[in-house]
Amino acid sequence: MAGRTLHLNVNILNAGFYSSAWRMPSSDPSAFAAVDHYVRIAQIAERGTFDAVFLSDVPAFSDRPEYRPFQALEPTIVLARVAAATDRIGLIGTASTTYNDPYNLARRFASLDIASGGRVGWNIVTTADPSASRNFGFDDVTAHATRYARAGEFAEVVKALWDSWEDDALVGDKATGRFIDTSKVHAIDHKGPFFDVKGPLNVPRSVQGRPVLVQAGGSRDGQALAARHAEAIFSVAHTLEEALAFATAIRTEARACGRSGDDIVILPGLGTIIGSTQAEARRREEELWSLMPGDYGLRRVAGLLKVDPASLDLDGPLPGTALPTDGMQTFFQALVGAAQRDGLTLRQLIRKFGGSTGHRVIVGTPEQMADDIEAWFRAGAADGFNLMPDVLPEGLEVFVDHVVPLLRRRGLFRHGYTGRTLREHFGLDRPESRYAQSRYAPASAASSRVASGA
Amino acid sequence: MAGRTLHLNVNILNAGFYSSAWRMPSSDPSAFAAVDHYVRIAQIAERGTFDAVFLSDVPAFSDRPEYRPFQALEPTIVLARVAAATDRIGLIGTASTTYNDPYNLARRFASLDIASGGRVGWNIVTTADPSASRNFGFDDVTAHATRYARAGEFAEVVKALWDSWEDDALVGDKATGRFIDTSKVHAIDHKGPFFDVKGPLNVPRSVQGRPVLVQAGGSRDGQALAARHAEAIFSVAHTLEEALAFATAIRTEARACGRSGDDIVILPGLGTIIGSTQAEARRREEELWSLMPGDYGLRRVAGLLKVDPASLDLDGPLPGTALPTDGMQTFFQALVGAAQRDGLTLRQLIRKFGGSTGHRVIVGTPEQMADDIEAWFRAGAADGFNLMPDVLPEGLEVFVDHVVPLLRRRGLFRHGYTGRTLREHFGLDRPESRYAQSRYAPASAASSRVASGA
Repeated sequence: MAGRTLHLNVNILNAGFYSSAWRMPSSDPSAFAAVDHYVRIAQIAERGTFDAVFLSDVPAFSDRPEYRPFQALEPTIVLARVAAATDRIGLIGTASTTYNDPYNLARRFASLDIASGGRVGWNIVTTADPSASRNFGFDDVTAHATRYARAGEFAEVVKALWDSWEDDALVGDKATGRFIDTSKVHAIDHKGPFFDVKGPLNVPRSVQGRPVLVQAGGSRDGQALAARHAEAIFSVAHTLEEALAFATAIRTEARACGRSGDDIVILPGLGTIIGSTQAEARRREEELWSLMPGDYGLRRVAGLLKVDPASLDLDGPLPGTALPTDGMQTFFQALVGAAQRDGLTLRQLIRKFGGSTGHRVIVGTPEQMADDIEAWFRAGAADGFNLMPDVLPEGLEVFVDHVVPLLRRRGLFRHGYTGRTLREHFGLDRPESRYAQSRYAPASAASSRVASGA
Repeated sequence: MAGRTLHLNVNILNAGFYSSAWRMPSSDPSAFAAVDHYVRIAQIAERGTFDAVFLSDVPAFSDRPEYRPFQALEPTIVLARVAAATDRIGLIGTASTTYNDPYNLARRFASLDIASGGRVGWNIVTTADPSASRNFGFDDVTAHATRYARAGEFAEVVKALWDSWEDDALVGDKATGRFIDTSKVHAIDHKGPFFDVKGPLNVPRSVQGRPVLVQAGGSRDGQALAARHAEAIFSVAHTLEEALAFATAIRTEARACGRSGDDIVILPGLGTIIGSTQAEARRREEELWSLMPGDYGLRRVAGLLKVDPASLDLDGPLPGTALPTDGMQTFFQALVGAAQRDGLTLRQLIRKFGGSTGHRVIVGTPEQMADDIEAWFRAGAADGFNLMPDVLPEGLEVFVDHVVPLLRRRGLFRHGYTGRTLREHFGLDRPESRYAQSRYAPASAASSRVASGA
């Protein structure tokens, strides 16, 4: 573990992770759709030498907008503006493999990677939201297994396209008039069940080679995708034991795919409600809870369980419902796990999950935050966290000013950036293009690498 | 014509419109894939109070990259970075209706429109390039008529999505906890031959209401699309008479679609090679021609004609070939038109078109440029021009410093920006959401407006 460094992202969930964040005194209700809000948060995170900002995404008008803000602006557009206003911090954007084409997505992220000097990551999701499917010509959500089969092939195509230029393909020799050495720009000739893509990409490689592949989604299929492709994982974990088991499982599975496994950066989500004393933090949580609009919490929990809100008994236990087969398995399991572990009534579960995202939340002092983060990090349960401050930017500012100094003092977190790219922040190697490698290997080995998407 | 103002865009064709621009002393061969290059050009254009920068696009590695740079970076990413570094200039990006989904495209441009304070336009193209089709699972180019049928429906869906929020849908009342008035955010419920899209969009309207719709492509189907939807047109015209006939035809056809027609901003493409004397401009053209790499010009002309380059007799007339049915009709017609009008041999045609884009080119002094622009503008043949400087940024800098002052002195061009949005620069009204209008009209009339895409 010597030399191991903690990694911190901030997940910019519009007004903050708590559903009532927008009603707090410091919040501007229109900030969710204003780029300046995201820029300001990224600048605060960069002051705190965070690894990256993270933007989630669903291509639909959903999550009960009558009650709370949502992710409105398209992530790559927001991140391009953030790139212009920052210098070092990484930029991770979510995009769906179910509702995109691999060529367009590979190109957009490659362009952003160049525009930001190699600071980009793509968070791969398959999008379980039915309102998204109806914006793309489907009556209902594509089956879970099909979504993940498509996602696996999608990621392979995108990686091949990102490799399609060798680093020295641009000649640009004014004297001879030779511009590109086209023998160093490769068609990928992909043919698969979901995609036929000839390539090559029309964008050169960036300074970090290609964007970092990030994965979120803890179902069996999601883990298999992560083990094969993910360089960083945004996971859900409510206990240290659960997180440790997940980390062990994913690294083992990655090794079975021929990867080292050790360099995968595992970042559980972590909501933060910070006070200068434990009592102050609790009062802050109480205030957020009291501001939660209408029946938002009940509807959110009922939505995760896929039951009618009217059928629920608030003072009884969680009804026995089956694991949903079409998505949102991770948060469903978190809810059921908490109900069983802590013996919570539905009302208590709503209090725990209703205002939040389904990720673990710490309510406490900066010291308590640092202790918890240190314990998980040292145990190997996490390489860091995808932080979700309760209210943005306020909650992040408090974290940067009061928790980050503690983490630095304990030797856990960087005092300044040592690298310029997201790969450097995450301690990941710069990948060589598979086609450059193939120059030194028999042609057949090279093409089998292409076919397997390695 | 009182109060009519000239409009100027700069079409940022990587190193400049001339194929050998990258070999000129002022050029950096790697600039085509560097965002800073585009930012710098936009800042020069903004100093010249241009209406907008314009980015063309093809989602493929094409146009003979062994010889010259091409459009590499995805336009909306580049424009998001340009937005951060400029304040007033409009931002027009090209995106294909054949290789995108309307929901994603509507959202990306709406996000960019918000991120730039209402300065965005979408240039609608259907993409005739076969290498693009092979990146999206097609063996060959989709038939011209099918592409345009899809484009028409695509534009209708995008406009409906951009209207789906009324301007006052955000309530954001901290006291009551009411966030969005969902009765003012409308599903579009579009069902058509190409697309089923429920909506609404998850992005509010921008300060200019919605992005400006720009159209390029002069085929019969292209003109019909423009007459129905375009608020600005990037056209091809080699003579004033041709341009005047086009403008008259398109405004007449727009009136037949129930539009006024007069407010469509028609901007022919115009290549510029400027010298302080006519002789100096000619020498500059000669230098660019002499630097044209290899057989680039021959191959480009042969590609437009869709014939084998080896079959061509350089000192004979243009071979009689049929109008291509699958695309690139506009440039084919320009080539054939020039051959007939000026009685050119193939060698002369290559000289005229081989180094350039197929658009009209003026070689001359700033005074000659201003005279030509004034003549076309006053005759009603153009509302302005989509300028293509020979070499970028150099050729634009010369235009801004030496031609723009002449245009201002003649009362043709603005001395400073009077508006903040692209609609204001172009003199276009801010469109009201169709759903807001429907509050004051019978429901049946409102829904028929939706169905017709008006």
